[in-house]
Amino acid sequence: MKKKVILDCDPGHDDAIAIFLAAGSDAIDLLAITTVSGNARIEYTTRNALVACELAELDDVPVAAGASEPLVREQVISVDIHGTSGMDGPDVRPPKKQAIEHHAVDYLIDTIHREKEKVTLVATGPLTNVAQAIKKDRSIVEKLEEIVIMGGGSFGNKTPAAEFNIYVDAEAAKVVFESGAKLTMVGLDLTHQALAQDREIVAIENIDGEVATFTVELLKFFRSTYLDVFEIDGGPIHDACCIAYCINPEVFTTKHLHVDIEVKAEHTYGMTVIDYHHVLEKEPNAHVAMELNQDIFWDMLYSSLRNLNK
Amino acid sequence: MKKKVILDCDPGHDDAIAIFLAAGSDAIDLLAITTVSGNARIEYTTRNALVACELAELDDVPVAAGASEPLVREQVISVDIHGTSGMDGPDVRPPKKQAIEHHAVDYLIDTIHREKEKVTLVATGPLTNVAQAIKKDRSIVEKLEEIVIMGGGSFGNKTPAAEFNIYVDAEAAKVVFESGAKLTMVGLDLTHQALAQDREIVAIENIDGEVATFTVELLKFFRSTYLDVFEIDGGPIHDACCIAYCINPEVFTTKHLHVDIEVKAEHTYGMTVIDYHHVLEKEPNAHVAMELNQDIFWDMLYSSLRNLNK
Amino acid sequence: MKKKVILDCDPGHDDAIAIFLAAGSDAIDLLAITTVSGNARIEYTTRNALVACELAELDDVPVAAGASEPLVREQVISVDIHGTSGMDGPDVRPPKKQAIEHHAVDYLIDTIHREKEKVTLVATGPLTNVAQAIKKDRSIVEKLEEIVIMGGGSFGNKTPAAEFNIYVDAEAAKVVFESGAKLTMVGLDLTHQALAQDREIVAIENIDGEVATFTVELLKFFRSTYLDVFEIDGGPIHDACCIAYCINPEVFTTKHLHVDIEVKAEHTYGMTVIDYHHVLEKEPNAHVAMELNQDIFWDMLYSSLRNLNK
Amino acid sequence: MKKKVILDCDPGHDDAIAIFLAAGSDAIDLLAITTVSGNARIEYTTRNALVACELAELDDVPVAAGASEPLVREQVISVDIHGTSGMDGPDVRPPKKQAIEHHAVDYLIDTIHREKEKVTLVATGPLTNVAQAIKKDRSIVEKLEEIVIMGGGSFGNKTPAAEFNIYVDAEAAKVVFESGAKLTMVGLDLTHQALAQDREIVAIENIDGEVATFTVELLKFFRSTYLDVFEIDGGPIHDACCIAYCINPEVFTTKHLHVDIEVKAEHTYGMTVIDYHHVLEKEPNAHVAMELNQDIFWDMLYSSLRNLNK
Repeated sequence: MKKKVILDCDPGHDDAIAIFLAAGSDAIDLLAITTVSGNARIEYTTRNALVACELAELDDVPVAAGASEPLVREQVISVDIHGTSGMDGPDVRPPKKQAIEHHAVDYLIDTIHREKEKVTLVATGPLTNVAQAIKKDRSIVEKLEEIVIMGGGSFGNKTPAAEFNIYVDAEAAKVVFESGAKLTMVGLDLTHQALAQDREIVAIENIDGEVATFTVELLKFFRSTYLDVFEIDGGPIHDACCIAYCINPEVFTTKHLHVDIEVKAEHTYGMTVIDYHHVLEKEPNAHVAMELNQDIFWDMLYSSLRNLNK
Repeated sequence: MKKKVILDCDPGHDDAIAIFLAAGSDAIDLLAITTVSGNARIEYTTRNALVACELAELDDVPVAAGASEPLVREQVISVDIHGTSGMDGPDVRPPKKQAIEHHAVDYLIDTIHREKEKVTLVATGPLTNVAQAIKKDRSIVEKLEEIVIMGGGSFGNKTPAAEFNIYVDAEAAKVVFESGAKLTMVGLDLTHQALAQDREIVAIENIDGEVATFTVELLKFFRSTYLDVFEIDGGPIHDACCIAYCINPEVFTTKHLHVDIEVKAEHTYGMTVIDYHHVLEKEPNAHVAMELNQDIFWDMLYSSLRNLNK
Repeated sequence: MKKKVILDCDPGHDDAIAIFLAAGSDAIDLLAITTVSGNARIEYTTRNALVACELAELDDVPVAAGASEPLVREQVISVDIHGTSGMDGPDVRPPKKQAIEHHAVDYLIDTIHREKEKVTLVATGPLTNVAQAIKKDRSIVEKLEEIVIMGGGSFGNKTPAAEFNIYVDAEAAKVVFESGAKLTMVGLDLTHQALAQDREIVAIENIDGEVATFTVELLKFFRSTYLDVFEIDGGPIHDACCIAYCINPEVFTTKHLHVDIEVKAEHTYGMTVIDYHHVLEKEPNAHVAMELNQDIFWDMLYSSLRNLNK
Repeated sequence: MKKKVILDCDPGHDDAIAIFLAAGSDAIDLLAITTVSGNARIEYTTRNALVACELAELDDVPVAAGASEPLVREQVISVDIHGTSGMDGPDVRPPKKQAIEHHAVDYLIDTIHREKEKVTLVATGPLTNVAQAIKKDRSIVEKLEEIVIMGGGSFGNKTPAAEFNIYVDAEAAKVVFESGAKLTMVGLDLTHQALAQDREIVAIENIDGEVATFTVELLKFFRSTYLDVFEIDGGPIHDACCIAYCINPEVFTTKHLHVDIEVKAEHTYGMTVIDYHHVLEKEPNAHVAMELNQDIFWDMLYSSLRNLNK
């Protein structure tokens, strides 16, 4: 049976690749894509989601636009990594596909309740929509199989302590991490193992089809900004790791740990404080991704890209 | 011309009296009532709003239920002051009037945009709905005449530093106070001048009609909890002061001051930090109510209650 | 029997008047004066203490210089109120009297232990020395009759929430307020009742002697800065209120309340959070001064100034 | 020329080994040992320092006791790692050597000023003494060659975010890290490379003499608590790494980075926020130890222990 998945995202280069990975997989029934501001302003992330859907021929997957600002703080976007459009690099045509009229938060709630089976919510942007949905209707928590979150880690990329998605809306993250939902946290410790370097980019160049070509263009741009900004040799395909886990949970190992979200600090706002050694003796609230199985991950991505060239 | 008013409230004894004051006044065109959790859970505050509308024969005023929880924190209610039902005291019949299907946040946004003239938003509960509306559609700010807020003050009632409405959702208050909307802040310094003591309760007892009788019962309960909890001799009709201001702004004086909302503190979470002496040299963002004109206020209330006995 | 008093101060116009008040009173045995940076840099506050001692012929009272910086934060001084010298206004001759070699913190500890009877520690500047003494030798707490603190209040003068002395070293205040020592807190609510206006200044002008003349010059300068900075008509002789209390505790009423010191906030750092209504249900830790007896206070001051003209 | 070193410490198993390492090295002129509460109460850390000195025949090195409590917070000790005595494990005889009468803070200041050459201050406990010395006499900063600090790291051992020494007195750490002194920070990232496992303990067992035997007993106890508490196979000889660096700076590599000390957070109090990638664009303030040269380190330790068996 396919896994029922809703993807809440802010494309974003790696979000787009997450969409392709889901689109090309037999294991996933993508119920909806909801968008949030983050890597770029909401207009762009929604447009980019539509573009990715169109490329991947996800004609039946509704796209609903969501929060244009974090719960409390002012909007922060990630121009230096993703460009102003959130998906700089490839030539992007205006999509024909339109977002639906529903607001993402309402559509999330409705979709989760509508399905008979439990739904897996994959959140690869700031957690604003997810937190709002939980706050608006806490009964969705028990209808969720789990929430798979790209965010956090034992180090930061937006500040020395905070990863971008959590930093942008740490209050939302706090709501989600304290919600009681089953959480799988895919942080930077994991995603920096999913580095697209020459070998991987060449492998994708060898796959036919428009989507693979688009992916190469995304990866080349993304790789160059990571080199410039972080001096990291390779573009970490953060968000795709979450979809990979939905397809095959063996793609990474996890540890069940307690994670606190810091929202009051002077220097560590937005940090995911992961208690690896149980020194706080608090109940675990997140399955924290530890080690990526490189073979499973890349084979999965190549396979999806090949499948999309029908 | 009547003032277009939306009342966002959490009845609440004094919220109910605010509704009566508005209902009995010729100066106010009450466009809608939206509810929020605060004095009681959202089910109760919505029921209580409907009850008050029914009593005041506000048949055409839609009531829309809103946020059941603060933006980020857990729900706090005010059982000790208002009882579990939020309006303990009078015998309350289940209302026939129903809330509309819209969520308060959406209905606020739609109503504000629908009106040609600018709308005055009176917020007498925690600011969760108002903050969410601003975050969801920041363009409403310029369509608002002003936001009249019951909240804050130079002292607290929930903690030594914080007034209940702001304390319950200080993050929401921060969003609203930093929104750029014109704000009138009716804090405890003002509302504790609007004390219903024997003289005022007797005066209302002398008014005929069901609404006046109901008001007396509200005031007697409210007065007794204020005596028990705060040792204050008289029930401060906090929320009615905001409506009074909409009817006649001369009901109190104001000073244009800068107000910060404290959300990070150990002991002062939810405090409205009012810079009375401009020591911070920040731009004023709120017209802070200073001195109540007792005559105007009570005459206005008696007059409305008389008008409701048609 | 005279009350054994150590005065820890940062003269400061009103600190100097506190010294005069003590010097001219039969009720006080002034064991030592220790100085701290605050109203001015430590070099100035020490010099000013020596000047005041010399004027008041306190030849046998040792003066020990103390902390030049707060426990943790950077030094803040109060140029706008006291001038750079901390005692601008009168013509000040360099004092012949010298400070002793001991550091204030050590001298405090030694003096407290040396006395058979319990000692009253009056602290009219930032609490840096006092906190350090407690931290260095916690056994002094039980040798103290009480600590009488000029600081805090239900409103601020350095920021909207914080009084200057507490603001300058709130960490030190936290140590002192949590020390378990008996505390009497003389905050702005009290000291703003001790306003030197025309009537009082004229009364002092009519007293003969160098000290009275000097006091008039202090008060005229101080009064003018209070008018300029705070638009307050009168100079509040803050620090003298603490000495007045040592001479005659009936000079003001007190309430036994819990006071927290806020050190973590964004907008309220250095606030004394006074729980007037016991809403926190915490153990009281301070006797908070409430209402000044004007007659007792001013008679006491005039009497001391007369006594100093021997 | 020998390096002039003052060691401020809280022995502590690894502090004692640091003393032995210094005592047995020709490269170090140990001017003084000052003690602070930390691993154990000040009575114990002082006694342990005296014991270590006696064993190492450091008869001419004065030991001065210092702070018994952190600057602001309450005392925290490390019973689970070091036992109540701070140096559980070996049989410890009461030392004949006595601490000098001076307080550590004063002795630090005097010693630094007394020396013609610049002094290296090695701080292997909480930074209370060091911060107090800087606050008491800021002119010592320019007389210091550098401060070599055992503390902090990119992960914690007291909490998920904070290392013990910094956690115990983060306010003191903030003072030191913002002091402008040249700092070398030897954090857990480095010291967890200096693991005493079987191989190293056996090597020390093969060294003759009382000090080596004592060191083995220390390491066996320490190793077992690290296994129990942290599930780490080996006892990290944290503090000795700082002395090793004084003997030969090539014992580890460093990066010049900006480090902030978090004192305001809910979950990350006492964290050293290390900006490895210069994302904050702040001036570097610490040379952060990165990679240990195992050969240099262990050879140095074995050599010192051999030298002490005269």
